[in-house]
Amino acid sequence: MNSLNVPMWAELIDAFDAASRDSDVRVCVLKGEGKHFSAGMDLAVFAEMRKIADEEACEGRKREKVYNSIDFFQRSVTAPEACTKPVLCSMQGAVIGGAVDLATACDIRYVHNKAQLSVKEIDLAIVADVGTMQRLPHIVGDQRARELTYTGRTFSGAQAVEYGLALEGFDSSDDLDSHVMSVASEIATKSPLTIRGIKKVAVYTRDHNTDDALLHVAQHNSAMLFSEDLDAAMAGMMAKKEPVYRGN
Amino acid sequence: MNSLNVPMWAELIDAFDAASRDSDVRVCVLKGEGKHFSAGMDLAVFAEMRKIADEEACEGRKREKVYNSIDFFQRSVTAPEACTKPVLCSMQGAVIGGAVDLATACDIRYVHNKAQLSVKEIDLAIVADVGTMQRLPHIVGDQRARELTYTGRTFSGAQAVEYGLALEGFDSSDDLDSHVMSVASEIATKSPLTIRGIKKVAVYTRDHNTDDALLHVAQHNSAMLFSEDLDAAMAGMMAKKEPVYRGN
Amino acid sequence: MNSLNVPMWAELIDAFDAASRDSDVRVCVLKGEGKHFSAGMDLAVFAEMRKIADEEACEGRKREKVYNSIDFFQRSVTAPEACTKPVLCSMQGAVIGGAVDLATACDIRYVHNKAQLSVKEIDLAIVADVGTMQRLPHIVGDQRARELTYTGRTFSGAQAVEYGLALEGFDSSDDLDSHVMSVASEIATKSPLTIRGIKKVAVYTRDHNTDDALLHVAQHNSAMLFSEDLDAAMAGMMAKKEPVYRGN
Amino acid sequence: MNSLNVPMWAELIDAFDAASRDSDVRVCVLKGEGKHFSAGMDLAVFAEMRKIADEEACEGRKREKVYNSIDFFQRSVTAPEACTKPVLCSMQGAVIGGAVDLATACDIRYVHNKAQLSVKEIDLAIVADVGTMQRLPHIVGDQRARELTYTGRTFSGAQAVEYGLALEGFDSSDDLDSHVMSVASEIATKSPLTIRGIKKVAVYTRDHNTDDALLHVAQHNSAMLFSEDLDAAMAGMMAKKEPVYRGN
Amino acid sequence: MNSLNVPMWAELIDAFDAASRDSDVRVCVLKGEGKHFSAGMDLAVFAEMRKIADEEACEGRKREKVYNSIDFFQRSVTAPEACTKPVLCSMQGAVIGGAVDLATACDIRYVHNKAQLSVKEIDLAIVADVGTMQRLPHIVGDQRARELTYTGRTFSGAQAVEYGLALEGFDSSDDLDSHVMSVASEIATKSPLTIRGIKKVAVYTRDHNTDDALLHVAQHNSAMLFSEDLDAAMAGMMAKKEPVYRGN
Amino acid sequence: MNSLNVPMWAELIDAFDAASRDSDVRVCVLKGEGKHFSAGMDLAVFAEMRKIADEEACEGRKREKVYNSIDFFQRSVTAPEACTKPVLCSMQGAVIGGAVDLATACDIRYVHNKAQLSVKEIDLAIVADVGTMQRLPHIVGDQRARELTYTGRTFSGAQAVEYGLALEGFDSSDDLDSHVMSVASEIATKSPLTIRGIKKVAVYTRDHNTDDALLHVAQHNSAMLFSEDLDAAMAGMMAKKEPVYRGN
Repeated sequence: MNSLNVPMWAELIDAFDAASRDSDVRVCVLKGEGKHFSAGMDLAVFAEMRKIADEEACEGRKREKVYNSIDFFQRSVTAPEACTKPVLCSMQGAVIGGAVDLATACDIRYVHNKAQLSVKEIDLAIVADVGTMQRLPHIVGDQRARELTYTGRTFSGAQAVEYGLALEGFDSSDDLDSHVMSVASEIATKSPLTIRGIKKVAVYTRDHNTDDALLHVAQHNSAMLFSEDLDAAMAGMMAKKEPVYRGN
Repeated sequence: MNSLNVPMWAELIDAFDAASRDSDVRVCVLKGEGKHFSAGMDLAVFAEMRKIADEEACEGRKREKVYNSIDFFQRSVTAPEACTKPVLCSMQGAVIGGAVDLATACDIRYVHNKAQLSVKEIDLAIVADVGTMQRLPHIVGDQRARELTYTGRTFSGAQAVEYGLALEGFDSSDDLDSHVMSVASEIATKSPLTIRGIKKVAVYTRDHNTDDALLHVAQHNSAMLFSEDLDAAMAGMMAKKEPVYRGN
Repeated sequence: MNSLNVPMWAELIDAFDAASRDSDVRVCVLKGEGKHFSAGMDLAVFAEMRKIADEEACEGRKREKVYNSIDFFQRSVTAPEACTKPVLCSMQGAVIGGAVDLATACDIRYVHNKAQLSVKEIDLAIVADVGTMQRLPHIVGDQRARELTYTGRTFSGAQAVEYGLALEGFDSSDDLDSHVMSVASEIATKSPLTIRGIKKVAVYTRDHNTDDALLHVAQHNSAMLFSEDLDAAMAGMMAKKEPVYRGN
Repeated sequence: MNSLNVPMWAELIDAFDAASRDSDVRVCVLKGEGKHFSAGMDLAVFAEMRKIADEEACEGRKREKVYNSIDFFQRSVTAPEACTKPVLCSMQGAVIGGAVDLATACDIRYVHNKAQLSVKEIDLAIVADVGTMQRLPHIVGDQRARELTYTGRTFSGAQAVEYGLALEGFDSSDDLDSHVMSVASEIATKSPLTIRGIKKVAVYTRDHNTDDALLHVAQHNSAMLFSEDLDAAMAGMMAKKEPVYRGN
Repeated sequence: MNSLNVPMWAELIDAFDAASRDSDVRVCVLKGEGKHFSAGMDLAVFAEMRKIADEEACEGRKREKVYNSIDFFQRSVTAPEACTKPVLCSMQGAVIGGAVDLATACDIRYVHNKAQLSVKEIDLAIVADVGTMQRLPHIVGDQRARELTYTGRTFSGAQAVEYGLALEGFDSSDDLDSHVMSVASEIATKSPLTIRGIKKVAVYTRDHNTDDALLHVAQHNSAMLFSEDLDAAMAGMMAKKEPVYRGN
Repeated sequence: MNSLNVPMWAELIDAFDAASRDSDVRVCVLKGEGKHFSAGMDLAVFAEMRKIADEEACEGRKREKVYNSIDFFQRSVTAPEACTKPVLCSMQGAVIGGAVDLATACDIRYVHNKAQLSVKEIDLAIVADVGTMQRLPHIVGDQRARELTYTGRTFSGAQAVEYGLALEGFDSSDDLDSHVMSVASEIATKSPLTIRGIKKVAVYTRDHNTDDALLHVAQHNSAMLFSEDLDAAMAGMMAKKEPVYRGN
């Protein structure tokens, strides 16, 4: 069920970093292998963290090691957000705990209506600490985020759409897949330079006030407005033809 | 109709402070006595404020007294948010003016579909100043918040759900009560230490950017991840039994 | 189709500035002349920007000129937000590109269900830089904002309501107009002093944390709570008559 | 040597709170009884914290108790800053550890040139956590603050002046006392309403950017500019006489 | 004594705006006509504000008018900071009240050692509200700023240098003038494009944290690094000749 | 003259990263090999950047590449700050341009009185973009920082001390070296866990307001207060012996 073990955490960072640099990649899709998106953190990870902690006799250094572990997991979960290209998330089956953290760090989420989601950390007596509590309120609002994190209750993909967590729900895996691929394909036809700019600006805006965000985008465009892609788009518009953009 | 008079403002602070310290309290429910949640600020409060102001000959000190009064009311309304335990709000009948301020400072809101709500302050020619204008946009979005505060129009409990102000609406008081109690009971079975942590993190996140919020929760868990409750949860999971947690 | 040309950008600033100062104006309605709200930025504007840029031999000064142009357009789009009085936006027909920027800077949006909207900038290979990317996430959430800006796809007025971009949709222009006018009329009966205060506080709140926002409104009311309008409202309440307020 | 024990921490809060409310108090002076300002945190406090922690079997709750203790000490040290009236700090003899935290929370510091100061916490293997690390950089700059906190070295009152920690140094206790009293007396002749306003604005400014700080003071004065004290000051100026202001 | 009357407040905005646009202006010097820099706010301004306020019967609108006046004065005092070119301030004789506000909004200050300065507002029972309290702490530190604003005491130009308010002091007007002119001439030989960039970045940095400031300057230079001026500077370096830059 | 070429930029990141992880390293000293600290950015770097830019035909992508280069240089210069251990900077001879950026990212700076420093970037017609403009104002104040960046003038080590850029100046290389080593040795005797904590808290404090900074340190100590080092320090105090701490 694709539980998130330590190797996978490291691979996430590498994979999205590679995607950022590969000029053939214009958009990413994050999905689980098989029937489930992911059952969340592999419990062996906690056992490992506990073991590392227990091997450290000094209470202070033990806590510093725990802090460093959390910091590493946070960077891993942030990988889809740090990727310079849009990441679409396709969820079906189990989407539990750490899997929700990961999903909220993607740009857009689609879901199978029968998927089973849960912000499960409360049932491990853990405050979710790798992203859900930080990003979910921006997506579903403050109130729904609190309810889901306090109760840890399971909700369906259809409800995920109703709450605003996923943009759209589908009744079959095939429909889910084909819609996600069509959105990905659509984005892949756009100017890659501009798409990267939009993502950078969207993340900045979420974390800054309106004045700072307006200044940021003005600076961005003063540098990057004029481009081959702008020329291609304008030419395409005149000629009523779809422009074709180079990679990266 | 439970209008909010000066003694009640002071009691709110004391009551939620007591709840924070009482280890038998795991979750709070805020509701009105009788048929109505609350008709809002007792007009006698304004009269009293005006009297205090009028007794002060110096224009500057008069304004300082008004400021101090508002500051006191704000701290009172913030009491549910300052409480270390989740506060569920159960609304029926009239939910007017100051009552909405109070409701928005709770963690989660449920409502009778026929409740009558209104951000009424505009009809007193007053800018709502004890919390609604600060917290409502995070709950219903910027646009709806403006409409409700500009017009002061009455809307039903069912609409409150549609707008996202309440999480769920019910057609009878009994259904409302029993649902609120079931959510409260559910939360009460969870690790109290973790629930307090979630609330602290949720409030912090609302008011800080993503980087700061990730750092905050990493620090929190570096201190509080390992606990009797984590052990109990893990043991319960192995034994497939509900864990039992100690109070506070 | 009301495309946004340079003279119009300047007029927007002047028009909303005049509205702020005219004591007979209590609320503004922004709508397009004819069947369309606006087809967005006049392409001649880009040509003009390009020409100005090309005339400048120094690469650095060229970029500074581009920056200054964007800064000017941003101030123009911010005009409805900077107006001290509420601005209602009434959208039908085409609402494209820069037109969406402008709409998001209004207080409240209403729409014809058959309107055709699009955050079209991506199809010009341009990162939208005059407000949509900064204000839209506060209105429709982070996820929907990204989807609309990445894909540039057209969506209907009915969908705009579903996404939360418009507050309400109508099946005919007449219904749209009459509803917008009824909301405007409603707001026009309220205390103008208080309405201005609400707008100021709403904009401040969007861009500051809760503690700062509570302090801001406490300061505001310590200065402006007591007014002729408060007296009129109180008197009206006693007499069970609608209060009448003076202008500005 | 006036070490800071638990009762004193509580008394600080009460004392400065009382001073805020007492209309006969216009300015406060914080000094040590006898030859020393204060030798800092009573080591019994750490023993007590450790004992409370050790009595708590749950690792998580233990940390929560430590957090709550630090929070209490922080509020105590912040008492001079929270006081609505200026607090002058008069330092001689030992000024060590927690005593420096306290001094930095005052408005202005004066010192005996032979005083012995030290940010001593490093020698207890503790990160200073009740204010020095937060306020010292604003007073002596980032670099000097780091040197003093890393090394914990002792420095003289004369050096404290050189570093900018104290405003002025004196070679005898009598000179120190008489200067502090003369500054206090000078401040006590000023408008109490305005002095309170200046302190509020100074603390706000330290923690906000320039735009926010300008807005804050504009709001403050829109409420409190016109006052009996302004009238008295203007009248005094015309008559070339010192104005006399009422208390609080 | 160059007191700051209403026409002068408006002229300041226009003058610095003109300087920003005039390509022949590379650096500005702000000094007083005659022996004094400025005696500060003309008392007639207060009388005028009072008169406007007294003509307004509504308490709330009266306060709004006061707020708008302060806002106007703040924009005027901010004019040297808003100017895109460096402003050197040359102070001698009286530098009182509003004159200090104005001086702190300049880039660099020089002073006659015998100048008489005072943050005088406290003696009018007014919280200084047009910039001194917001900018002075960044220049002389939090502690000195509080002492000067609480006491309103007069200090000499030589002390202004000691406190860090002015960069350098001179014993004669001629020496002051010639030094200021030599610094101005020095700056005038530099790349105007780069000087504007430095000022923009310096103001931004003061009001943002280090991460945001690093991002801001990276964006700035990604747009404006390559320029005719860079080429001229590089060429000059190779040829060991002073580069000559075009205006603006 | 140790000019900063591309390999060195990469090595800086690796070297400080290694120092963070090596438990035998308790404090770092950054100094130049030979007579000079560093003559700043190797001009070949600019040539290389220009070449990379010129190879890119698309104006937008060219700017993106410039942005990415600056981002890389910024991360390199931030390496001393990102190092978990204190970095002392020892400056003599030439300290020019990029060398000043690097120095300001260290914890504490010492200098030879005859060193020749310059924020030289203005003479290349470049806005200094890798740290000086962001960190210098926190060290020498806003005004001095502007003067040095506008004029690019050379100043001596003795002046660097007078301005607050260096903590102390020395008349010979031997005295400089031996003082730096004595401070480093002093810091190396302290608790490594606590020293790391102090550095983390100092950097956080510089970039956050007082409330956030107090919360941050309270969280830090709730996790890391109790440690072997605290026990060792307490035991040492009782026994009046210097405590010995383990590495990292």
